[in-house]
Amino acid sequence: MLRVGVIGTGMIGQDHIRRMTKVLAGVQVTAVTDVDADIAAKVADSVGAAAHATGEQLVADPAVDAVVVCSWGPTHEQYVLASIAAGKPVFCEKPLATTQEACLRIVEAEVAHGSRLVQVGYMRRYDVAYRALKNVLDSGEIGAPLMMHCAHRNPSVPSFYEKESAITDTAVHEIDMARWMFGEEITAARVLIPRKSGNGGVLQDPLLLILEMASGILVDVEISVNIRYGYDIRGEIIGEDGTAALGELSPVSVRRLGRVSAPVPADWRERFILAYDVELQEWIDSIAAAGPPLGPSAWDGYAAAVVSDAGVEALRTGRRVEVTLAEQPALYYS
Amino acid sequence: MLRVGVIGTGMIGQDHIRRMTKVLAGVQVTAVTDVDADIAAKVADSVGAAAHATGEQLVADPAVDAVVVCSWGPTHEQYVLASIAAGKPVFCEKPLATTQEACLRIVEAEVAHGSRLVQVGYMRRYDVAYRALKNVLDSGEIGAPLMMHCAHRNPSVPSFYEKESAITDTAVHEIDMARWMFGEEITAARVLIPRKSGNGGVLQDPLLLILEMASGILVDVEISVNIRYGYDIRGEIIGEDGTAALGELSPVSVRRLGRVSAPVPADWRERFILAYDVELQEWIDSIAAAGPPLGPSAWDGYAAAVVSDAGVEALRTGRRVEVTLAEQPALYYS
Amino acid sequence: MLRVGVIGTGMIGQDHIRRMTKVLAGVQVTAVTDVDADIAAKVADSVGAAAHATGEQLVADPAVDAVVVCSWGPTHEQYVLASIAAGKPVFCEKPLATTQEACLRIVEAEVAHGSRLVQVGYMRRYDVAYRALKNVLDSGEIGAPLMMHCAHRNPSVPSFYEKESAITDTAVHEIDMARWMFGEEITAARVLIPRKSGNGGVLQDPLLLILEMASGILVDVEISVNIRYGYDIRGEIIGEDGTAALGELSPVSVRRLGRVSAPVPADWRERFILAYDVELQEWIDSIAAAGPPLGPSAWDGYAAAVVSDAGVEALRTGRRVEVTLAEQPALYYS
Amino acid sequence: MLRVGVIGTGMIGQDHIRRMTKVLAGVQVTAVTDVDADIAAKVADSVGAAAHATGEQLVADPAVDAVVVCSWGPTHEQYVLASIAAGKPVFCEKPLATTQEACLRIVEAEVAHGSRLVQVGYMRRYDVAYRALKNVLDSGEIGAPLMMHCAHRNPSVPSFYEKESAITDTAVHEIDMARWMFGEEITAARVLIPRKSGNGGVLQDPLLLILEMASGILVDVEISVNIRYGYDIRGEIIGEDGTAALGELSPVSVRRLGRVSAPVPADWRERFILAYDVELQEWIDSIAAAGPPLGPSAWDGYAAAVVSDAGVEALRTGRRVEVTLAEQPALYYS
Repeated sequence: MLRVGVIGTGMIGQDHIRRMTKVLAGVQVTAVTDVDADIAAKVADSVGAAAHATGEQLVADPAVDAVVVCSWGPTHEQYVLASIAAGKPVFCEKPLATTQEACLRIVEAEVAHGSRLVQVGYMRRYDVAYRALKNVLDSGEIGAPLMMHCAHRNPSVPSFYEKESAITDTAVHEIDMARWMFGEEITAARVLIPRKSGNGGVLQDPLLLILEMASGILVDVEISVNIRYGYDIRGEIIGEDGTAALGELSPVSVRRLGRVSAPVPADWRERFILAYDVELQEWIDSIAAAGPPLGPSAWDGYAAAVVSDAGVEALRTGRRVEVTLAEQPALYYS
Repeated sequence: MLRVGVIGTGMIGQDHIRRMTKVLAGVQVTAVTDVDADIAAKVADSVGAAAHATGEQLVADPAVDAVVVCSWGPTHEQYVLASIAAGKPVFCEKPLATTQEACLRIVEAEVAHGSRLVQVGYMRRYDVAYRALKNVLDSGEIGAPLMMHCAHRNPSVPSFYEKESAITDTAVHEIDMARWMFGEEITAARVLIPRKSGNGGVLQDPLLLILEMASGILVDVEISVNIRYGYDIRGEIIGEDGTAALGELSPVSVRRLGRVSAPVPADWRERFILAYDVELQEWIDSIAAAGPPLGPSAWDGYAAAVVSDAGVEALRTGRRVEVTLAEQPALYYS
Repeated sequence: MLRVGVIGTGMIGQDHIRRMTKVLAGVQVTAVTDVDADIAAKVADSVGAAAHATGEQLVADPAVDAVVVCSWGPTHEQYVLASIAAGKPVFCEKPLATTQEACLRIVEAEVAHGSRLVQVGYMRRYDVAYRALKNVLDSGEIGAPLMMHCAHRNPSVPSFYEKESAITDTAVHEIDMARWMFGEEITAARVLIPRKSGNGGVLQDPLLLILEMASGILVDVEISVNIRYGYDIRGEIIGEDGTAALGELSPVSVRRLGRVSAPVPADWRERFILAYDVELQEWIDSIAAAGPPLGPSAWDGYAAAVVSDAGVEALRTGRRVEVTLAEQPALYYS
Repeated sequence: MLRVGVIGTGMIGQDHIRRMTKVLAGVQVTAVTDVDADIAAKVADSVGAAAHATGEQLVADPAVDAVVVCSWGPTHEQYVLASIAAGKPVFCEKPLATTQEACLRIVEAEVAHGSRLVQVGYMRRYDVAYRALKNVLDSGEIGAPLMMHCAHRNPSVPSFYEKESAITDTAVHEIDMARWMFGEEITAARVLIPRKSGNGGVLQDPLLLILEMASGILVDVEISVNIRYGYDIRGEIIGEDGTAALGELSPVSVRRLGRVSAPVPADWRERFILAYDVELQEWIDSIAAAGPPLGPSAWDGYAAAVVSDAGVEALRTGRRVEVTLAEQPALYYS
């Protein structure tokens, strides 16, 4: 039974605690902490875990085999570094850190440690549809990939969602997905600005993000975050001989009132809930098997941050922005 | 942590043990037994459980809070009765027992016990598509249900599959599903015999089973068990104002060689693996919460057996056969 | 330019006149007649055709090369027989005649004439989806056909629609389609009666018609004529190795209000308008080429009438009713 | 009966002659001409038309009410101008002329004439799916349009297909469609160059063309002309509150060999054959009704040429190229 400590007991932290307590196998939550000690105490109590005053104390707890970081983004770096320093596996919700420099410091710390300890919470890699899509691509059925069309649609976004969030919070999932899907780095980003939706207030919405992959594959991402009708994630890879797309995954089809229809997910929880379960179960299994984590690495978190920065610059300047990555350490060779 | 003993460590027993060990939360397998003591010992060893010589000993084990019965069908009755006698919750793979009389004895034992202890393994009630279908029906969107069209298609069946298996092993899932979907009993069965497939050897395949529900709803079930192309479960409810059908659930859509296509599941494992997970997790959660099991009851197992017998008689005689159930004990009122 | 005379200028007659005047090539309407002489005169005037007092006069008109019969059903026989007597090709809207005896008299008259002159208006054979379905079947891709599931759904029916109309007016299309699709006769019919829709007043609706083909293929037809949501024609053939179904044919897919949806046709005109165009154009072309008509023959009209009678008897008695056809004249061997 | 003269009896000319002779109503082909007099004579003979030595003679023929131009692109201008000079309606296959200057000369000639005589053969406006899409857009169901994603896929292209053909021959259909769909002009074009397909030899294929509309709507067009699997035209409009896309239009759905699939059209003829029929029938009807043609105008032909030139420049330079149109004459106000 893997003993996990959770840093940050806000919405996502509580959801992961619920998952590790009520859904997944081979894991128990033995310690929690939060900037709000009352919440931490309450959550700890509900699952029979210890409540620690700080993340560092939690990391040091001998009853903690591995750490899950769900705290406020700017604190991710310190807790991930503390986990590495303690030699404990750490699952860090995205982003790995809030600057590419901080991400690089984590990469360097992990390289200094000598083996992989860090996994970043990009859960799309665990989604059944994305995995089926990648299987088709890897099978060679559609030939070499040339383009990919994506759409990332939210019914609405909260009031604190800013102009740059479309890249840093939203499209960052496609950034990680594209790198994983094609097994290569993104080399440049561009943002085109369509007519503005009246649903988004002052926000420029939608956007069209265009990513260039190292081999020349072009990935276009429609980002629409106030589209009302539902949460909709689309993706189609154009290969030399055919195309492959994420399926519709509708559990039911209804014929009434002149239409045949199927429901669209209401939000990301509904769409990706199973992906989160699979993500964490596979992480638990890999740690329990004493292996390295197999999911998105610190390097993936770093690369996402660099591409995200390029995307933000492209959005601000209207220019094509090239992506410059540090040299990839051998630890991350696949 | 619910401590479960598993009777029967064949294919399905081992799969449930894997599920309770590697997939589900809040459960551990503490004891196993099998008619083949070597296999039982090997399986027990692999998960750190005790191996018992008999099912009765396993049921009596104080380290067993609840029992899962996966043994050979003809032994189900004795192990379920033993569990009831011990006052322990028991999850019994379908069928509940191999005759309707045996099923009725279980019902009577449970009624004598005074509260529900038995759940039968009809897992379709836990499938995301069937649940979405039932939600649409229950919402009233399509009006009162009048008919349902079903298809149960297997790519092939093993050599020991007999004429009656089409009803007792295959369509029995639709029998339970229809009772659950519409919340009423089946009152008559009829079997029509189409042109015979050349793929099934001497077996009469396909069949068209027609079930009449208490309110007059007519359920037709195509049973095709050698259809080669895949495992395909279809269902469409015809209501007064519209229809609702199981969705396609394809994770990926591919365009190549002149066609747009999506994969069909290869077998029942692929199609229903998540339903099995949900089924057992919900059972574990209900037992852990000290409540009665919420899934298919001993009554459901009994009713399925009676309808199945009627279906077999209808198949043999070509006649419409009415279903006669015992009076339903109050314990099973919903 | 084929010169056509139209008997009957009601709704369907006017629609065929519009079609031959505004849509199709190689045809002109040179004469019309109707039991209501005023309407006939008005329609004649609008297209520059002659208005005749009787159908017989129209048939005799030397400016009429071929006849289209759209009059009241009970008059079909006399006009078709008059056309045969005059040696003129005649396209008769369904039904060929209102009794099987009358149909047989037409068959005998045509056989006596010695070559095919009659075509009956079963337009589904000209529908792009049914033709694609038949092409798949005939290609052998799905193996030998064993069953077919059909649904014939109307949003509502007029007040004069009677109990038997479900067979004689509605399912008669599936009766002709099945004979054409499988190239064999129907040998028995059965009607099962589900729970009654509240939308249909006193009418028993829906029904489940089951047809047995000569080779044993079983065709089930859901007939729902008050289903509100739209006009929906479904069909899936179950073969030994796979299945083939009518496609969805939706011109547009819309994502709004939490659903992805496509429109369903509002009525049979919308669904089959192109089939009517193709039907009549191919008839015109075959007549213009001095060949026999290639569409549904008098024999097909006769067989549909006999099966329809069996269906009505099955509906009235609840019994399986065998179909007995006269011996097929060589003229109709395919 | 509208009497039409056809200039150019190559593949497309012969197809239009077949259409006007065998498919459409209210039209006859009374005269033809071709640079190859032998072919012209043969075609004329087959349909009972006169063969003229030149296009100008054909236009002058009093037995020609209206002209269809299907000759080699560089000759379009002279025949369209001749038709305008003769005051005869003229349907000109795309392009209207091979330079924007020539197109503008036609516009000016038509404006001088004082009423519309010219229609250009952009047939997508007549496709049932595009029309359904525009109906949804115009209904306001999805809110104001913000983006449109398109794909134009050919299985292969002939050897004379050049780099620029991707814009001038292929994407020009999307250029016209976008102007019609949104009722506004295109203001800029950009071409992004993905990884090159190995199927296209030296040709750069695919391309991503991005068009900016006057209101800011962004239209992206994937152009893949060697994609092997079929001819596939896709389009999805992203509105403020939802999206609408071209439907799949598959006449049949097949389940075999582990997949459920539907055919994709093999080429543009199969995909758009009905659109060509509707296009020409509506043109014939409008001319027969003595009204102006209602389809794509000379202005539309001119605008397509200007945008196409911008697209070619964008392709050659890699830059965003603005579109500068002449002032629109009042004749073309909609």
